[in-house]
Amino acid sequence: MKKKYVYFFGEGDASMKLLLGGKGANLAEMTRIGLPVPPGFTITTEACTHYYKNNQTWPEGLAEEVEENLKRLEEKTGKKFGDPQNPLLVSVRSGAPASMPGMMDTILNLGLNDQVVEGLAQLTGDRRFAYDCYRRFIQMFGGVVMGIGHDEFEAILSEVKREVGAKSDADLDANALIKVVERYKELYKKATGEDFPQDPKEQLYRAINAVFESWNNKRAITYRRLNNIPEDWGTAVNIQVMVFGNMGFDSGTGVGFTRNPSTGEKEYYGEYLLNAQGEDVVAGIRTPKPIIEMQKDLPEVFEELKKVYEILEEHYRDMQDFEFTIEKGKLYILQTRTGKRTAQAAIKIAVDMVKEGLIDEKTAVRRVEPEQIDQLLHPRIDRSQPLKVVAKGLPASPGAAYGKVVFDADEAERLGNNGEKVILVSPETTPDDIHGMAAAQGVLTSRGGMTSHAAVVARGMGKPCVAGCEAIKIDLDKRIFSVNGVVVKEGDYITIDGSTGEVILGQVETIPPQLSPDFQTLLSWADKFRRLGVRANADTPADARKALEFGAEGIGLCRTEHMFMAQERLPWVQKMIMAQSPEERKEPLSKIGPMQKGDFKEIFQVMEGKPVTIRLIDPPLHEFLPSLEELLVEVTTLRVKGVTGPELEEKEKLLRVVQGMHENNPMLGLRGCRVGILYPDIVEMQVKAIMEAACELSQEGVKVIPEIMIPLVGHRNEIKVLKEKLDEVAREVIDKYQVDVNYSFGTMIEVPRAALVADQIAEYAEFFSFGTNDLTQMTFGYSRDDAEGKFLFFYEENGILEENPFQVIDQEGVGQLMRMGVEKGRSSRPDLKCGICGEHGGEPKSVKFCHEIGLDYVSCSPFRVPISRLAAAHAALGSEEKKKFDV
Amino acid sequence: MKKKYVYFFGEGDASMKLLLGGKGANLAEMTRIGLPVPPGFTITTEACTHYYKNNQTWPEGLAEEVEENLKRLEEKTGKKFGDPQNPLLVSVRSGAPASMPGMMDTILNLGLNDQVVEGLAQLTGDRRFAYDCYRRFIQMFGGVVMGIGHDEFEAILSEVKREVGAKSDADLDANALIKVVERYKELYKKATGEDFPQDPKEQLYRAINAVFESWNNKRAITYRRLNNIPEDWGTAVNIQVMVFGNMGFDSGTGVGFTRNPSTGEKEYYGEYLLNAQGEDVVAGIRTPKPIIEMQKDLPEVFEELKKVYEILEEHYRDMQDFEFTIEKGKLYILQTRTGKRTAQAAIKIAVDMVKEGLIDEKTAVRRVEPEQIDQLLHPRIDRSQPLKVVAKGLPASPGAAYGKVVFDADEAERLGNNGEKVILVSPETTPDDIHGMAAAQGVLTSRGGMTSHAAVVARGMGKPCVAGCEAIKIDLDKRIFSVNGVVVKEGDYITIDGSTGEVILGQVETIPPQLSPDFQTLLSWADKFRRLGVRANADTPADARKALEFGAEGIGLCRTEHMFMAQERLPWVQKMIMAQSPEERKEPLSKIGPMQKGDFKEIFQVMEGKPVTIRLIDPPLHEFLPSLEELLVEVTTLRVKGVTGPELEEKEKLLRVVQGMHENNPMLGLRGCRVGILYPDIVEMQVKAIMEAACELSQEGVKVIPEIMIPLVGHRNEIKVLKEKLDEVAREVIDKYQVDVNYSFGTMIEVPRAALVADQIAEYAEFFSFGTNDLTQMTFGYSRDDAEGKFLFFYEENGILEENPFQVIDQEGVGQLMRMGVEKGRSSRPDLKCGICGEHGGEPKSVKFCHEIGLDYVSCSPFRVPISRLAAAHAALGSEEKKKFDV
Repeated sequence: MKKKYVYFFGEGDASMKLLLGGKGANLAEMTRIGLPVPPGFTITTEACTHYYKNNQTWPEGLAEEVEENLKRLEEKTGKKFGDPQNPLLVSVRSGAPASMPGMMDTILNLGLNDQVVEGLAQLTGDRRFAYDCYRRFIQMFGGVVMGIGHDEFEAILSEVKREVGAKSDADLDANALIKVVERYKELYKKATGEDFPQDPKEQLYRAINAVFESWNNKRAITYRRLNNIPEDWGTAVNIQVMVFGNMGFDSGTGVGFTRNPSTGEKEYYGEYLLNAQGEDVVAGIRTPKPIIEMQKDLPEVFEELKKVYEILEEHYRDMQDFEFTIEKGKLYILQTRTGKRTAQAAIKIAVDMVKEGLIDEKTAVRRVEPEQIDQLLHPRIDRSQPLKVVAKGLPASPGAAYGKVVFDADEAERLGNNGEKVILVSPETTPDDIHGMAAAQGVLTSRGGMTSHAAVVARGMGKPCVAGCEAIKIDLDKRIFSVNGVVVKEGDYITIDGSTGEVILGQVETIPPQLSPDFQTLLSWADKFRRLGVRANADTPADARKALEFGAEGIGLCRTEHMFMAQERLPWVQKMIMAQSPEERKEPLSKIGPMQKGDFKEIFQVMEGKPVTIRLIDPPLHEFLPSLEELLVEVTTLRVKGVTGPELEEKEKLLRVVQGMHENNPMLGLRGCRVGILYPDIVEMQVKAIMEAACELSQEGVKVIPEIMIPLVGHRNEIKVLKEKLDEVAREVIDKYQVDVNYSFGTMIEVPRAALVADQIAEYAEFFSFGTNDLTQMTFGYSRDDAEGKFLFFYEENGILEENPFQVIDQEGVGQLMRMGVEKGRSSRPDLKCGICGEHGGEPKSVKFCHEIGLDYVSCSPFRVPISRLAAAHAALGSEEKKKFDV
Repeated sequence: MKKKYVYFFGEGDASMKLLLGGKGANLAEMTRIGLPVPPGFTITTEACTHYYKNNQTWPEGLAEEVEENLKRLEEKTGKKFGDPQNPLLVSVRSGAPASMPGMMDTILNLGLNDQVVEGLAQLTGDRRFAYDCYRRFIQMFGGVVMGIGHDEFEAILSEVKREVGAKSDADLDANALIKVVERYKELYKKATGEDFPQDPKEQLYRAINAVFESWNNKRAITYRRLNNIPEDWGTAVNIQVMVFGNMGFDSGTGVGFTRNPSTGEKEYYGEYLLNAQGEDVVAGIRTPKPIIEMQKDLPEVFEELKKVYEILEEHYRDMQDFEFTIEKGKLYILQTRTGKRTAQAAIKIAVDMVKEGLIDEKTAVRRVEPEQIDQLLHPRIDRSQPLKVVAKGLPASPGAAYGKVVFDADEAERLGNNGEKVILVSPETTPDDIHGMAAAQGVLTSRGGMTSHAAVVARGMGKPCVAGCEAIKIDLDKRIFSVNGVVVKEGDYITIDGSTGEVILGQVETIPPQLSPDFQTLLSWADKFRRLGVRANADTPADARKALEFGAEGIGLCRTEHMFMAQERLPWVQKMIMAQSPEERKEPLSKIGPMQKGDFKEIFQVMEGKPVTIRLIDPPLHEFLPSLEELLVEVTTLRVKGVTGPELEEKEKLLRVVQGMHENNPMLGLRGCRVGILYPDIVEMQVKAIMEAACELSQEGVKVIPEIMIPLVGHRNEIKVLKEKLDEVAREVIDKYQVDVNYSFGTMIEVPRAALVADQIAEYAEFFSFGTNDLTQMTFGYSRDDAEGKFLFFYEENGILEENPFQVIDQEGVGQLMRMGVEKGRSSRPDLKCGICGEHGGEPKSVKFCHEIGLDYVSCSPFRVPISRLAAAHAALGSEEKKKFDV
C-alpha cells in the first residue's frame, strides 16, 4: 500500500502524536469528536524524516496528496485558493510530537497576494484589516521562509509611523499600511533578489519546506539534545483554513467556559463580540457581552454553541476554556484547554462531575490542588470593593479581619468582652498579651518576623496577623499610629489581610470560610485514598475542637509551655524557675501540676479515642522571665535615679537570675530534654499530670491515648534516662488509679544527630515525630527568626535557594536526614510510629515527601488539616507527574 | 604418655597461657629467662576442666604430681612444709587464661599452724608479724575456702581493737593479735563445725579445690558470659613459696626501675628497706634508701640485682618496674611490669632504646602517648615547692606563668613594654583588651567559659589562662581582688596554672617547655610513618613562626577576623559595618584592604612554599560593635540623667544599629558566606588583599600557595555564586601582576547540610576543611558557650555523654557526617583535598579518626602540632589495640 503522508483533520486522532505531531493530533481529535474546527490537514512527521534522509526532497506522492487535500479544503469551504472574490487563506504551523521551542511557529494568512488582499478588503469591508493581514503575512513569510531579519521589517514599520505621525501600530490607517506593504515587498526583493511570490501554491510549498527546515535549526537541535528528544522524530506541518470574525454582524469571536470558573455552576459561561477578531476581545476597547445573550443575537449559532459545550464536557470530562470565531453565521472552534478556576469552583466541579458520572472519585480528588483550598479556610477580603491599602507587612497568619484599633491587650479584652471587634496593634506581643490576642479579631505588629510571638500565636489561634509592618509608627502614649502620612487613632476601624500582609483603612467586609457540603464530600473521598494519617497541632481544647471539625485524627503536637504562659500561671512558673533547689521548686510545682492536669483532661475529653501527643516542656526556662534588655533598662533607671531599698533589690535579684540564665544562642542551649534531665521534678510533674488526667477519664469510661513526647533528644542516653524515670512515674499513677491506660513514650527528631543515630534512639522511643522546624534550623544552621529577615528572603530572591526551607521541606538535606531517621529507626524497632509535627506537615509538597519516606502521619495547624488530607490523598494516588513532553 | 597436670615454674613459658593461665605462664617465663623468682608450680587448667567434667574429682596422677612438686620446693628452698624450725609457707592463687574478676584471688602464708607460727616468730624475731600472718591466713582461708563472711572476721578485729584501745590495725601488738587468732579459730569452728585445719597439706588441698570452685562462682560466670569467655577454659592454680624480707638485716624488700622513670636516664633506679616487708615500703613509716646504696649494704645482692636489670631490659625491651624481696641474702623477684614514666622519660627511653638496638623506630614512636607530651609543650609549675593555691577556675589555656596583677589592658601593655611580667586579671576580656593580653604572661578571668573571649584568644596566643574563676571578686575601682579571705592588690605577684585552673599566691618558678633533641628525633620518626599531613591554625606571623618551629607543614586555618579586631583597625571596621550602602563602605574598605594585605604578606613570607588556608570573614558583623546590653545601659543612663544633644544622639544611633543587627541566635545567623553573599565588596576586598600579597611576593621569587576558604557553606549555590565572583577578582589581580600563583577556592564543612550534600558542593570547592567546632554545635544542637557551663559538664559527670564532643570527635554522629562528607565530596571530585581545622585536629583520638576516614591533613593550634604529628603516626601504625584479654 502506498504510504499516506497527509491526513485531513478528523482522519487521525489524539493517539497519533508521533505521526501527526501534538498539534495535528489535537486538531484531528477535536474534529473527530464533532467540534466545528476550521478544516485543514496535517503533513506527517514521516514526510519530514523522508525529507532529511533524501537530500531535502519530498517523498513520492506527497505533492499529490497536498493537492488533493487542498481541493478538499476548497470544497468544504466553498472558497478558492488565490480567488480574490472568495479567497481561501490558510495558516501553516509546525507541530512536532513534543512541544519544541525554536522551531518555526506560524505563518498566518497564507494565500494573500496583491489581488486577494483587495478581495479581503471588500469581503470584510475593512481595508485596514486586509492590508494589516497582508503586511503581517509578508513579514512572517519573509522572516520564516527567507530568513529576512525581524529588525528590518520593524525598521520599515517605524519609518512609516514616523512619516504619518503614528504613535503605535494601531494608529496606522489603511493607506499607511499599503505603504508598509509596498516597502516590505521592496525589502523582500532586495534581500532575496526576487519578487514576493504571488502564487499561493508557491507560497504554500515554500512554507512547508520552511517548516521542515526549522526542525534542524540551531535552537531546535540544542533543545533536542538537552531534552533527549530523538533526532529522527521530525515535525509535522499543519495547514488550516483561516476564519474571520470581522466579516459583518453575522460574524464574531469569543471565549467560552463549560462551567462557571468562579462558582463552578454548570451554565453557559463566556463572552463574545460581534464583527470582531480575537485581538479586539483582548484589547478591551469594546466590552464583550455575556454568552447567554447570543441567544438573541444569533440564535442558531447559540444552538450550535450549546452542542459544543456538551461535546467538550462529554469528551474532556473537565471544565474547558475554549475560543471560537463565527464567520458569516458559521461557528468555528479554534482551541480548547482545561480551564482555570477558583478553589470553590474546583471543588464544586469535581464533586458535580462525579455525580454526573463524568469522572470517578479519584479523579475528582486529583482535580483540586491542596494549596488552592487554603483560601477557603480563612475569611477573605471582599475585593469587589475599593480598598484603601496604606501599608504592607509580613503575611504572618492568613485570613482577613476588621476591627477597632486598640493598643493594649487589656483594652482589647475589655472591648472584646463587650462584643466589639478589635484589632490589637502593638510594636510586638509577649506572653502577657495572649488574653488580648484571644479577644481580638486580628493582630498587627510593627516589629518581628514570621516566627515572632505574634505570628506564631496568631497562626495557632487561626487569627489573621500582619507582622513586622515597619511602615506604621506606633505612639503608645498618644494612642495613635501613623502610616504614610495617615494618622489612625484608637477606636478607628482598620482591616488587615494576613494572607497578603495588607493594612487597609476602614471596615472592609470579609467573606467567611466555607467548608461547604461539596468540600466535605471531596475530603471524605480524599480520606478513602490516603495512606498518611492527618493530625493537628493543638495546645488548647478550643484548638482540639477546631482540629476535629476539620477532620484531624488525633493531636500530633500539644505544646505544654503555652499552658505555662497563661497570665494567672506565669507567677508560679516564674517561682518554679527562680527556685534554687528541688525543695524550693516543690510549692510552685504543686500549684502548676493540677492546672496542667486540668488542661490535659479537657483536651483528652475532646479527643476521646484519638491519640494525643503531648510534648514535655521545651523552651529555655528564661523565656518565661522578663527579657534581659528590659531589666537592664529598669535597673539602670532605678540606679541613676538613686532609688534604693527593696524596689531596686528585687529588680536586681531578678536581673542577676536572668543574667545567669542568659544564653548566647538559646536555640542551642538549655532546653528540651536537657531541662528535664537537669530538673527531673518539672517533667515528672508533667507526666504525673498527664497520667492522672488520663486515668481519671478512663475511670469515667473515656478512652484516652496519651503519647508522651520528649523533645530535643540527640543521644540515646538522654531518652534512656528520662524514659526510665518517667515511665516509673506513669506506672505509679496507673497503680494508684488501678485502670489501664494505653500510653507510650517517644521523641522528637529535630536535632541532626538524632536522625544520624535514630537506630539507637529507637531502642527507647516508641514513636518519632520529626520536628522539621528545628531540624531545618540546625541542618542549615539558620536561626529562623534571624535568617528570614536578614538573609533568607535575599537568598530566595536571588535564586540561592529555590524555596524557603521553613515552608517546603528541603528534600536534599533535611529530607535526607528524615529518610535516614525513618530507616534507621525502623531497623531497630520495625513498628516504630513516625510522624511530623513541624509546620511542613501542612504543606502539600512536604506532605508528598512524608508519604514517600513512609511516615505514618502528618500533623499541622488545625486550619491546614483539610489541605493535608487532600495532599495526602494526592500523594497516595501518585500525583500525576507533569509530563515534560505531551507525547 | 601420661598427661602432665603440674608444671614447675620454668618448665613452661609465656606462650602457654591457655594451659597455665596468665599468671602461671608469666611466672614460668620469668623463671625461664633466669630471674630469681620464688619457686613454685602451676596446676594446669586441664586439671580444672577435668575436675568439672568428673563430679569435682581430681584426675588420676594429680595428687602425686602435687606431692612431687611440693618435694621439689622443699628441696629447692631447704625448708619443710609444717616444720616450725624452717617452715615452708606458700601462697595459692587462681590464674585463668584471661584475667577474670570474681574468682578467688589469693591465700597467703598457707602452711602456718599453731606450731609453725611460733617458729616464724623466732625466725623473724617478730612475734607480732608472725601472728599477723597467721590471723590473715585464717581469715583468707576461712573466707575463701569455707565461705565465712569477711564481716564476721572484721567484727572480731574491731572487738579486740576496742578491748585493747587500739585505733588502727597497726596499733595491735603481738598479744592482741594472739587474741585475734584465738577468736578467729573459734569463729571458724562455730561456722564450719570443725577445728581450723592444722595439717598444711590438708590446707593446701582444700585451697586448690577452692580455686577450682571459684571458677564457677556467680560473679565469675556472669563475667564470662558478658565477655564471651569459654566455660571450658578452666583456671590454673599457682602455688608459690612465700619469701620474707623481714628476717633480719640480710633481708629486705624494694622496688626497682630499669631506667629512671622521671628522666629516662639508664641507671639503677629504685629504693629498698632492709629487714622489711613490702607493706612497710607502702606505709611510708620508714624512709627507703636509693637502690644504689645497696652496693654498700648488700654488695652481693646488688650484683645479682644488676643482672636482673639486664635480664629484664634484654627480655622485655621496655623499662620495667619490678618488686623484689631479699630473704637472708637471697634475692627474689616477685613481679615485673612495664613501668609508668613521665613524658620526658618516655621520649628519652624510646630514643635511647632505638640507639641501643633494643627496639625499632616504629616501636619507639608507639611507646610515647601523644596526649602525654602536651605537658612538654607549655611551661609547667615546679611542683617541688609548696604552693599557696587560693582558688581554682577553668583550665582554659594550658601552661603556667607568674606576674604582677594588673586590672586593665593598657596598664598590662605599659608594664609589659617595660619588661615586667604581668597577669591580666579581669571579669572578662573583650577585643579591646587584646593588646594587654599580648603583653601579659597570662590571663585570669572571673567570668566566662572554655570558649570565652579570654580563653579562645589565650589558647591562640599559647598563653596560660584561667577563666571563669568565680571565687575571685574583682573590685576594679579599688584595684584589688579578694579570694577566700585573701586580698590581692594590683602589683602583687600571682601565678596561674592554665593546665589545672589553679590560682596561686606569689611568684612560683616555672619549667620552660622542652623540645629536646630526643623529642625532635622521635617526631622525625613519627613523620616518617604518618600519612596525615599536619598543619597549624595561625592568624599572625608570630603564630606561623611558632607553627613552623613545631613542625607544621602549612597553615590549615588563618582567621581574618582577628585581624579586624586590632585596636587601630576596629574604628574602620566599625565604619564599614555602619555603612548603609556599598558607596559608604568604599572608604573603610580602602583602608582595611591594605592592612589585610600587609598581614597576608608577612604570613606568606614566613610560610614560604607551604600552603596557607585563609578563611574569609566569618563572625556576624555585630561582633565588632559594642554589645547591646552595654549600650542599653549607657543610653538609659544618659536619658535618665537628662543629657541631650550629640552625645546622646550618637549613642542612640549606635544603639539603633546594634538593635537592628541583633540576633537571637547569632551562631545561626548572618555570618560566614552569608555575609559575603550580602556584602560581596567585603570579601572581594579580602580576596584582592590575599592575591595582591601573593602576587607581590611571587614577583620577589617567594613561593606562595594561598587556599581561599569560604566559611559556612550549606548549599551548592552559596559557593557557586561566591566562587565565581571571587575567582574573577583573583584572576584580575593575577592579570595585573602578570605572575603565576597557584591559588584555590574551598570551603569549610561545618553546617550539617554541607556534609549531606558534599557531592554538590565539591563541584565548586577544590578543598574541604571540616570545621568540627561548629559542626559539633549544629549536629548536637549545642551552643558551646551555653552548653558547657549549663549542662554539658552535668552530662559528662552523669554519664549521659562519655566524652565532651567539643574535645573528642563524636564519631557516631558528627563523625558519620564527616565520613559522608569525605565520601560524597570525593565522589564528585576524586582529588578533593580534605582537612580538619576544628580544635579536634590536635586531639589524638580525633586525629586517629581523621586518619581512618581518609582526610589529607589535620590542623591544630601551633602548640599541639607535635601531638598531632605523633598521633598521626600512631594512627598510621595502627595503634596497638588494648587487648581485652591478655591471652
